[in-house]
Amino acid sequence: MNETLAVIGEKKLLNRLKKFMPVGQIEDDTAQIPYSGKELLINTDLLVENIHFSDRTTSAEDVGWRAIAANFSDLAASGVDEILGITIGLVAPPQTTWKWIDGLYTGMSLALNEYGGKILGGDCSSGYQKLISITALGTLGPLRLHRANAKPGDLIVVSGPHGLSRLGLALLLSDPRIATTKLTNPLKKEAIRAHQRPSPALAALKTLNRCKPPGVQWRAGGTDSSDGLLEAIENLCESSECQAELNPLTLPKSQDWPLGRDWDMWCLNGGEDFELILSIPPNWAKALIKELPSSQIIGIMKSGKPKVVWNNGKEIKETKEISRFKHFSN
Amino acid sequence: MNETLAVIGEKKLLNRLKKFMPVGQIEDDTAQIPYSGKELLINTDLLVENIHFSDRTTSAEDVGWRAIAANFSDLAASGVDEILGITIGLVAPPQTTWKWIDGLYTGMSLALNEYGGKILGGDCSSGYQKLISITALGTLGPLRLHRANAKPGDLIVVSGPHGLSRLGLALLLSDPRIATTKLTNPLKKEAIRAHQRPSPALAALKTLNRCKPPGVQWRAGGTDSSDGLLEAIENLCESSECQAELNPLTLPKSQDWPLGRDWDMWCLNGGEDFELILSIPPNWAKALIKELPSSQIIGIMKSGKPKVVWNNGKEIKETKEISRFKHFSN
Repeated sequence: MNETLAVIGEKKLLNRLKKFMPVGQIEDDTAQIPYSGKELLINTDLLVENIHFSDRTTSAEDVGWRAIAANFSDLAASGVDEILGITIGLVAPPQTTWKWIDGLYTGMSLALNEYGGKILGGDCSSGYQKLISITALGTLGPLRLHRANAKPGDLIVVSGPHGLSRLGLALLLSDPRIATTKLTNPLKKEAIRAHQRPSPALAALKTLNRCKPPGVQWRAGGTDSSDGLLEAIENLCESSECQAELNPLTLPKSQDWPLGRDWDMWCLNGGEDFELILSIPPNWAKALIKELPSSQIIGIMKSGKPKVVWNNGKEIKETKEISRFKHFSN
Repeated sequence: MNETLAVIGEKKLLNRLKKFMPVGQIEDDTAQIPYSGKELLINTDLLVENIHFSDRTTSAEDVGWRAIAANFSDLAASGVDEILGITIGLVAPPQTTWKWIDGLYTGMSLALNEYGGKILGGDCSSGYQKLISITALGTLGPLRLHRANAKPGDLIVVSGPHGLSRLGLALLLSDPRIATTKLTNPLKKEAIRAHQRPSPALAALKTLNRCKPPGVQWRAGGTDSSDGLLEAIENLCESSECQAELNPLTLPKSQDWPLGRDWDMWCLNGGEDFELILSIPPNWAKALIKELPSSQIIGIMKSGKPKVVWNNGKEIKETKEISRFKHFSN
């Protein structure tokens, strides 16, 4: 009982909290309630200063934009149809300027203009560090994406390239690990944009829904890659009790992405990519990659112990030294 | 633009944020969206350690209970019918124990068992101080309570006594200001309970709806007294452009409440009372106090400059030295 969160870690904490949630939807991030014949999706996301953002790399406007993008990415990964609106819990120290707050809300409003939904209301309070808690509401479309809905025989499809946001952060921080690699200007620009103004995969979801071949069931495993591509696939495997086999030649990398093992690892573990990671029947996957040029088939879902392996059978594990920040660990 | 929040203050900050909210519902705390023929109420509330609660006076279970009570009090003051559920954003430093988290969620679950609704999901993160952001969803009943719906000629009715929570806090902190006054044991017990396990006025709202006299419109000014009785009435006056006249002989005090000006001020400014403050037609008010023994008529709503006065015309103002903590001020 007296173990600290630093010892327990985020994943086990979420598991322990499940006993308080009779509907048990914490695993999928997005909650769902039936309401007047439709289904309502509700998603709460926290962004905490010096954990999820920092003034060093992110302007107030970008923080606002990213807060909306991260939240709507969860809604996209649940199958949202229309976004109804958001409420905002804002915490800020007394020395925070109006300029910062104005920038934050401007960034959120810009993202809402782009992706839908209105600011409905909220609450604010003083606190030791800046923090934004956003709850978004939307309606469910024809396909309820779930981590637990992958099946052996599916193909694994991603809606876009990975690692860009992590590279963008490294560029903004002048990270010495990238100093020795020559990067093209378009890649740098794309990476910084991916970090500061990421896009939730709402359009990709619409395409996915539109291109379902006739006769194929409305069933798909799905999540987003906000915690990194590898972790997203691991989550699909664990929730669906499947094994994912990836092809190293088809890792979803941007056009000018450098070669090398470390760069592959950033693609797999970078995090905050906000793409859809799908497990769908082969004919649906093939229809999708025709319709959505950014999307790519990266592997197959098989039966077997839940883990992610290369097609030579070797397990793919996160490289610690390059991994993203893990909450609650020191 | 470079003014800090400490200078701006909470009230002006909320006013400035209105430009980002086309539906402008921040003033009433609770947001509302039409949805499939019904109306959905959504309320987000923040509880921050060392501002809204402290380990010194409040156990984890009590923090959980109060988080739900404070949120549902806003829903009651908007006219909620049925509470559907909540999402929880939890922030805690790495050294927080599982025991504290378990207590927090136990307290929330106890309150949900009492008042309705389920934990639907949420998010958690590390941070410098403990913080709970709760978003609650409910459906609207027959009466939409609004701060702006008071009218001259209404009576001002409260659903229960005020100042108890503030007294409870003073008792828990062994505040020297109360050391010279003899307090009865039932009052002490009632006050500590009001601070640690407050009740949202959901039952009072049901009674209010039930006892509306036939022929009277479904129109009532209303808010809750989470920021204190006086501030609640001031808010009604400002939003409705009315003047409230209170009778000093009918201040809503608990049975054994001590006499004296300071004690009257705690009744008016104590805060966290979570009662309904209503402005309703006289025949409705009289029906309510018959049906709800804890309720009381405390004054009348008149036309005139928005302020709160005694029935001798003297304005009632908050006494600074006794006032509750104001967010963002130092």
